[in-house]
Amino acid sequence: MTTIQDIADKLGISKSTVSKALNDAPDISETLQKQVLETAVELGYTKLRRYKKPAKKLCVIIQRNNIQFEEPHHFAYDIIMGFRQIAEPSGYEVAIVPVDADVQREISYDAFMLQHDFSGAFVLGFSLVEPWMKDFHACRTPTVLYDNHIIGNPMISYVGIDNEEGMDLAIDHLKKLGHQKIGYLSSALGSHIMQVRHRAFFQAMRSHGLKADSSYAGCSYYLSECMEKHLPRLLDMGMTAIICCQDTFASAAITQCQQLGYQVPKDVSIIGFDDIPLSAYTSPPLTTVRQDRIQLGKSGFNALSGLLNEIPLGTILLHADLIVRNSASAPANC
Amino acid sequence: MTTIQDIADKLGISKSTVSKALNDAPDISETLQKQVLETAVELGYTKLRRYKKPAKKLCVIIQRNNIQFEEPHHFAYDIIMGFRQIAEPSGYEVAIVPVDADVQREISYDAFMLQHDFSGAFVLGFSLVEPWMKDFHACRTPTVLYDNHIIGNPMISYVGIDNEEGMDLAIDHLKKLGHQKIGYLSSALGSHIMQVRHRAFFQAMRSHGLKADSSYAGCSYYLSECMEKHLPRLLDMGMTAIICCQDTFASAAITQCQQLGYQVPKDVSIIGFDDIPLSAYTSPPLTTVRQDRIQLGKSGFNALSGLLNEIPLGTILLHADLIVRNSASAPANC
Repeated sequence: MTTIQDIADKLGISKSTVSKALNDAPDISETLQKQVLETAVELGYTKLRRYKKPAKKLCVIIQRNNIQFEEPHHFAYDIIMGFRQIAEPSGYEVAIVPVDADVQREISYDAFMLQHDFSGAFVLGFSLVEPWMKDFHACRTPTVLYDNHIIGNPMISYVGIDNEEGMDLAIDHLKKLGHQKIGYLSSALGSHIMQVRHRAFFQAMRSHGLKADSSYAGCSYYLSECMEKHLPRLLDMGMTAIICCQDTFASAAITQCQQLGYQVPKDVSIIGFDDIPLSAYTSPPLTTVRQDRIQLGKSGFNALSGLLNEIPLGTILLHADLIVRNSASAPANC
Repeated sequence: MTTIQDIADKLGISKSTVSKALNDAPDISETLQKQVLETAVELGYTKLRRYKKPAKKLCVIIQRNNIQFEEPHHFAYDIIMGFRQIAEPSGYEVAIVPVDADVQREISYDAFMLQHDFSGAFVLGFSLVEPWMKDFHACRTPTVLYDNHIIGNPMISYVGIDNEEGMDLAIDHLKKLGHQKIGYLSSALGSHIMQVRHRAFFQAMRSHGLKADSSYAGCSYYLSECMEKHLPRLLDMGMTAIICCQDTFASAAITQCQQLGYQVPKDVSIIGFDDIPLSAYTSPPLTTVRQDRIQLGKSGFNALSGLLNEIPLGTILLHADLIVRNSASAPANC
């Protein structure tokens, strides 16, 4: 059982200095506090402390550069709302913690959580290259990742929608309308979820008996490259429908198709992913695969509450839902 | 809103006959009762009835030919126990319903559930060819499938362990011990879970940088064929470790290796899947990937309770766990 004395011994400092550092006293330098926290984590002090006095503070950690959350029309707003809707009545205090890569480089994940006395986190918007993604493989803090899947650490859960189902619903819908040539536009495959959707596109095409080689997908980090290079290429290939990895891409694709002289959905059908609030207000309104963001937030809390109670939850996927509006219809030659 | 009158009209019989059939009256023939139930389901009467008088009866449906459950050492015993441990204190009555293919052929799934007044089910041991597997694609009864994944029906959830993680843990363990040539023995790929584990084997080998072409796996419906044909073949190929799809296969493989003059684990390491109670009592005791059966049962209820409350839960996977006993060690040449 790790004690404050063990941390003091390891660092060659006094017990009271360790105690002050752990309690955020103002007369301890930041460097020393960080050293104490990292050592506390290394020696397994995290667990002990929690055992002695169960903390009731949780946090939602958001990669502020990848995901917006402040306004009701932002993607993560409802996810956070859903999380708080169950967490707070259950007696937890919920802090919203925007981070960037710099914060993650400064301090290890477990030490950060210990420093702020958070007993668990729900993590949103992390790409595969975030510094803390490595920490998640071995962290000891109960943590639920939205749209990221870490294998082999029982302290981590993955919550998201079933993107394979979502892609299947989109392609099934297009096939029933009469489409055969369907393309896919995606941002770069630098996040777990972009990889999952990309793979799901080819899988669903195959399972519906439709042809799709790698030229059927166009991926780029730059929205402009997708719109100016890949979209025209897909149209030239004779695609009558295009599925986009996200609604923002779909919304841009509708506009770009129109500027290229194609009517949507008469000449080309467009389907998005996510059902962000904007999707009802594109012209035409966007047919899209819905993520139920309130339920995702609630499931995030349920998973975290499971981990805090030592239930080994690995993955929770919600059903995807196809919201049919007006951006997809039967192809012209049908 | 469907009424008893609608059902009566559709079948050209009286309201009171319909009512009797729905209430299991003894003077109604089985054929007529079945017809009334199927029509009730077809017209959407299920939902209406539940709305008027919320039923509190759930069931665990078990394919009796595929899975044993009666005794504490049987695989499904603890799953059912875990389910009841939360369901009953939550005010539900839980019926255990063993079925076979004949029962499933006699009546549709929704009609069966209506007939017995069950508001939801947890379904165990269904292979891909069970007649009700087709019904699950469109059924309207909240249903949780253990180890089966149906896409596109919001009334269905899938609960199981993360088999990809389990296979990853097994191969990681063997690789760290020094194994390079690892084979896989499996029963026939006639169930979702056998397909998942088979795919996961090749995926985990690849992600660990280990070679594995299709000859590295031996699959057969017959245990005897696996032991007499595939196992000797894998040994002849120079495999120093063999992962088995289930503990029963692993237990038989240990015995068979010994009969062929191979010592386990000195000459060949064996790893199983499931951690059935028997696994601690093989000789040597079996290293295996554990399914936490009590937690699976509890998750089954949690998922069902979610569906009953209109939470669109698609998939819940629990973390797999590697239980290290004595059937795997460093290879002889290591």
